[in-house]
Amino acid sequence: VKPLQESHVAVVGLGLMGGSIAGALRPRCRSMTGVARRQETLDIALERELVDLGTLVLADGLNHADIVILATPVRTILRLLHEIGPLLPAGCLVTDLGSTKADIAAAMALLPATVHAIGGHPLCGRERAGIDAAEPTLYQGRTFVLTPLPRTAAPAVGLTRAMVSAVGARPLLLEPRRHDQLVAVTSHLPYLVACGLVESAAALAAIDPLLWEVTASGFRDTTRLAASDVTMMRDILMTNQEAVVEALASCARQLDRLASLIDAGDQDGLEAILRSVQTCRRVLDG
Amino acid sequence: VKPLQESHVAVVGLGLMGGSIAGALRPRCRSMTGVARRQETLDIALERELVDLGTLVLADGLNHADIVILATPVRTILRLLHEIGPLLPAGCLVTDLGSTKADIAAAMALLPATVHAIGGHPLCGRERAGIDAAEPTLYQGRTFVLTPLPRTAAPAVGLTRAMVSAVGARPLLLEPRRHDQLVAVTSHLPYLVACGLVESAAALAAIDPLLWEVTASGFRDTTRLAASDVTMMRDILMTNQEAVVEALASCARQLDRLASLIDAGDQDGLEAILRSVQTCRRVLDG
Repeated sequence: VKPLQESHVAVVGLGLMGGSIAGALRPRCRSMTGVARRQETLDIALERELVDLGTLVLADGLNHADIVILATPVRTILRLLHEIGPLLPAGCLVTDLGSTKADIAAAMALLPATVHAIGGHPLCGRERAGIDAAEPTLYQGRTFVLTPLPRTAAPAVGLTRAMVSAVGARPLLLEPRRHDQLVAVTSHLPYLVACGLVESAAALAAIDPLLWEVTASGFRDTTRLAASDVTMMRDILMTNQEAVVEALASCARQLDRLASLIDAGDQDGLEAILRSVQTCRRVLDG
Repeated sequence: VKPLQESHVAVVGLGLMGGSIAGALRPRCRSMTGVARRQETLDIALERELVDLGTLVLADGLNHADIVILATPVRTILRLLHEIGPLLPAGCLVTDLGSTKADIAAAMALLPATVHAIGGHPLCGRERAGIDAAEPTLYQGRTFVLTPLPRTAAPAVGLTRAMVSAVGARPLLLEPRRHDQLVAVTSHLPYLVACGLVESAAALAAIDPLLWEVTASGFRDTTRLAASDVTMMRDILMTNQEAVVEALASCARQLDRLASLIDAGDQDGLEAILRSVQTCRRVLDG
């Protein structure tokens, strides 16, 4: 594989994630091409200098690429992986920014043996969506998970690591299924719990509309993820069903235990849990 | 009752909430006395000019008060309400800053007929605790729920409203039990759900410690409330058991429905809910 600074890079999908990585890599690679569905998106990406070139035609975007980054919702990534094999130049590296990795690894395994493939998942907040929210600084200081396939050659892993470092992120290598089980709890579950909270509130508000008058910052913070992009989240959940259902079951068990302690008036038992949770949570804030 | 600016005010409990309301009201009343358990707290309150006078002796703090604000955890408020009757000057107004109101209203109903009483609950974020976190601006722009008793005279309600306005908050009159049912969903449930999330994550992290490496801002925001003061939250939950248990059951039903849709691969059904939740949540951000 060529070094990053000599590589022609193509980013497919210029939303928040794709637009941001294009902008972050453009000064560090030979050329940056953006592929989008709408001319308006390309116009914005060009005007904001996130890309050097833009095209609506996938084949045109890929045919000289040394590195291809798929930056669409997960199931569009899966569809693209099944379609782009014949369009990829020999020796090119294919990666992605999808939030689930096992299905994507399986689809990458079916790519022609002439191309390199490795999954990627940068951990960034993203309730906002679209090119307008894109920022080249989005990945700075973030963890960027890489999920090599058994077939991924060491130089391809090295090039992807260089790309991650170039955008200011920290690479973390994980097996795809292990990644999916972890983010089911740390990312997909918080989203669903936020949705459940909003639904519970909406159900009570249907009876007593004053409910919205007594929501404060705690409710807003805890439910912030419920405003996330629905297409993105639906694809994530539908490609991580088993781990997500298990995460929901785990959370339900914890809530049921808390409910039992409260119902029984077991304040010592309750307090012991609340204290251990508080200690655990405060560690996250350093 | 006297107008606010002619009133001697006593705040019992100089933590985040009490210290902040003392500092906010001090310039608007005749005198501000703080009652605390520790001399160190009084020293800080005096040095920060949150109070004019400080005392460790409850009776000394109350014996000339026109307005008494109880600003301790809820069950300490309940204990104080059962003890302070004989210490209160005739005609004085007793209120509080506790986060549940039905038990407090019941305890206030037992105060001598010679004093006025009305419950209060300012809606502010408060993961931080203690006098060091106190700020006179804490209540600005916040909703401040007032829960009058059947016996509360109109002038006492008026004086409390004036006090709420003086600290920059918006008064909202509610029946105590209705308040408790609403905040069970908008405040106590988000706290418990945050705790359940942290517990689920900790359980998986016990098997795979890399979990903490793949937590991003979404997890931190959704679990922020789990860092709340435990004594405060334990008292809140233990004085709102029925409504909290019902709120947990409502949330469990919503999560169970989401799990069923994901498990069944019903993407249209799932997407319909996620979209309605997203719309509902985005309204909160204006």
